[in-house]
Amino acid sequence: MISNLPPSGFRDFLPRECRARAKAAKIISEAASSAGFQAMETPAVEDLAVLTGKGSGENERLIFQILKRGEKLKEEFDGLILKPGQASPGLADSGLRFDLTVPLSRYYARHQGFLPHPFKAFHMGPVWRAERAQKGRYREFIQCDFDVLGSEDLACELDVVSTIVSALRDLGLAEGLSVSLNDRRVLAGDLREAGVSAEFEGRTLILLDKKDKMPEEVFTRELDGLLGEKTAKALSGALARDASSAAAEPLARLRDLQGSISRLCPWAEFKIDRGLVRGFDYYTGPVFEIRHPRAAGSIAGGGRYDGLIQAFGGRPTPAFGGSIGFERVMLLLEEMKGSESGEDGARVCVTIFSPELRGETFAAAARLRARGLKVDVCPLSGRLKSQFKYADATGARWAIVIGPDEAAAGRFKLKDLRSGEEALETWEELNARIQSAAAMEAHLA
Amino acid sequence: MISNLPPSGFRDFLPRECRARAKAAKIISEAASSAGFQAMETPAVEDLAVLTGKGSGENERLIFQILKRGEKLKEEFDGLILKPGQASPGLADSGLRFDLTVPLSRYYARHQGFLPHPFKAFHMGPVWRAERAQKGRYREFIQCDFDVLGSEDLACELDVVSTIVSALRDLGLAEGLSVSLNDRRVLAGDLREAGVSAEFEGRTLILLDKKDKMPEEVFTRELDGLLGEKTAKALSGALARDASSAAAEPLARLRDLQGSISRLCPWAEFKIDRGLVRGFDYYTGPVFEIRHPRAAGSIAGGGRYDGLIQAFGGRPTPAFGGSIGFERVMLLLEEMKGSESGEDGARVCVTIFSPELRGETFAAAARLRARGLKVDVCPLSGRLKSQFKYADATGARWAIVIGPDEAAAGRFKLKDLRSGEEALETWEELNARIQSAAAMEAHLA
Repeated sequence: MISNLPPSGFRDFLPRECRARAKAAKIISEAASSAGFQAMETPAVEDLAVLTGKGSGENERLIFQILKRGEKLKEEFDGLILKPGQASPGLADSGLRFDLTVPLSRYYARHQGFLPHPFKAFHMGPVWRAERAQKGRYREFIQCDFDVLGSEDLACELDVVSTIVSALRDLGLAEGLSVSLNDRRVLAGDLREAGVSAEFEGRTLILLDKKDKMPEEVFTRELDGLLGEKTAKALSGALARDASSAAAEPLARLRDLQGSISRLCPWAEFKIDRGLVRGFDYYTGPVFEIRHPRAAGSIAGGGRYDGLIQAFGGRPTPAFGGSIGFERVMLLLEEMKGSESGEDGARVCVTIFSPELRGETFAAAARLRARGLKVDVCPLSGRLKSQFKYADATGARWAIVIGPDEAAAGRFKLKDLRSGEEALETWEELNARIQSAAAMEAHLA
Repeated sequence: MISNLPPSGFRDFLPRECRARAKAAKIISEAASSAGFQAMETPAVEDLAVLTGKGSGENERLIFQILKRGEKLKEEFDGLILKPGQASPGLADSGLRFDLTVPLSRYYARHQGFLPHPFKAFHMGPVWRAERAQKGRYREFIQCDFDVLGSEDLACELDVVSTIVSALRDLGLAEGLSVSLNDRRVLAGDLREAGVSAEFEGRTLILLDKKDKMPEEVFTRELDGLLGEKTAKALSGALARDASSAAAEPLARLRDLQGSISRLCPWAEFKIDRGLVRGFDYYTGPVFEIRHPRAAGSIAGGGRYDGLIQAFGGRPTPAFGGSIGFERVMLLLEEMKGSESGEDGARVCVTIFSPELRGETFAAAARLRARGLKVDVCPLSGRLKSQFKYADATGARWAIVIGPDEAAAGRFKLKDLRSGEEALETWEELNARIQSAAAMEAHLA
């Protein structure tokens, strides 16, 4: 028998989960569209040359590679003799995208003549990484990226960060939102000021990036070990200072951003964190990271990456981008609200009394739908008990029964699935009852 | 230099295309949800054992296979010696799904205890096929499937077909919609009646399935060649008859369906086409196919497949499903409406007069958004000409300029990008103007 599980690290979604995910995706898309970010899409599959070009870094070894097909695959194998341990030859020509930034770069290089300049892009979709599967880490997950390409103005930073922070507010996550800001040039200045030599810069940044994941004293010990006590102390001093002699202008710009965005999004706290690295080595200017008190890691982040976009032969293009960690946000929403109720499912379920009344029953359901109601028809006829069970399982509030007497009288039996009460009603009475219940629930929500 | 093209057969989508696709997807999802079909999702990647199990048929050789990784791949290669022409060994363990029916079967086998019974599923997402890329045929495309699992009642047929036909109406495709209905058991009866031997049954069905794609006389010649003139004539006779002695009950049921659904969806024509095969060999009962006068092939179709679902160890489960050919529908909509206007983009674009007014400008945009308007901010400061050019490229109707005088007076300059007119207004005046223009356009649309 074939296993009914998806591959390790991949997920199925039950209807309840699909509704919650679709709702969150809609809120995020609307925040993007409302602020003038334009939806764009790229395919799941890219040539390996694109994926392994500039910008992939660490992620390159996590690519799901796609086997060549037909003659092309045969050519790779013809006469092939592999020695133990030898690397795989050119068996793959393409792979699944591991982020949305590499495809965006290719897309912009190809289409920039047809896009507004600057281009404010909203790019949302699944990405795939062949990471070791573990709790909360999946091999297929959704990314939501907001990017402004083609402008160096601080408006990009304001636009992307405020749109992301507004989307998080619209998701119900305003309370306790905290945004850390830094600038890579300020950080580089701090390292130079403290006397960290170029040789140790990379390892120092990696250590700073992991600071939040380790106890304070472990961090201090590791920093001392890496740089020597004297330089480590000088660095801690530089990061704690208000000024930056090596990067005064980027720091002033960062303060400007902090001031404007604090006024714009008063529901979140914006602070400058001089030690913030935010991973990727392609960042060249401001970086940010958003945290929520109930989430372990960051739930959004990004930065300026002025050198990346032209890798595919486009013109030199300044760029600032940020993304919402969709899976982390979903986890957070689920923990905060408990499991979603069936509220978005069909509220009314019409049963089919007998095969003869099937057509009439569907027609009745269509009339109710024309009034804007969600109306399910149970796809069984007869055996009302099974049909009530179905209605209940779908989260319906009411079940409707139309027997031959009811059909003849233009009425139907309404069963309240919560109270068990039954009543004989006309369509008008039902409609009024449903509208008032909906209004009541909207009021309570 | 790395190519900026997606792989052959894969597509990028420009913002205008994304808006049109999202709008169509929303209409289809809402038709599904309004009729009680529940959204479900499965991953892009499935184990090869799942994909190549029952039900894959022809499509199996079109699977994009995913290379094993790390130790598992190395094991396959250790000491491997391949002779010329030898098939590839176990290099792949998984692949991209080529349809949504195989994943649905696995999903249902795994989750049926947590799902309503019967289960009305709406499953929409990309699938991948390594077909030779050509115009109108892509290697990545969207499928929208509606299925009812767990009921033999004709309500399933009524429910799926009427929901699909309603979705097509909501997409603006009602005019000229034509639905062909048949039943595989009636067709099998017709073949038996005509004296087609079991040996020739498969080839006869394949030929019938292709009938629409060839001139009448070519079909007649090929049928004569396959079955001999006498049997071919008997078959044509059987298919043209009103009755079916071999399958009277399924035919009566099909007529019942035709009557009910014609009354339910009077905007479409429903006819019984005794020669309709509808491809897949897993169909066991009623099949249907939907055509539109301006589309070359069918734009939707499906059938009953009672034997398929239990392949993954679920209980025997009757099933009826249909799907909308999303890509064909998009092609049709594009041809019918011409290119979509920018109407769904941001209607108002706020320019940034100078860096000092950046924060104030974003705050003004946020106030307009809070009133429900879509408001873009051009991510540049200064050089108004570039900003107007940006506003125009995004399809904005109005550009707003807030200089220091305007900011101090609580006013702003409004430029109508269609007429070029400029006016000094208050926020209240702007809001009234935009609302009335929106109402006017909604009225005209």
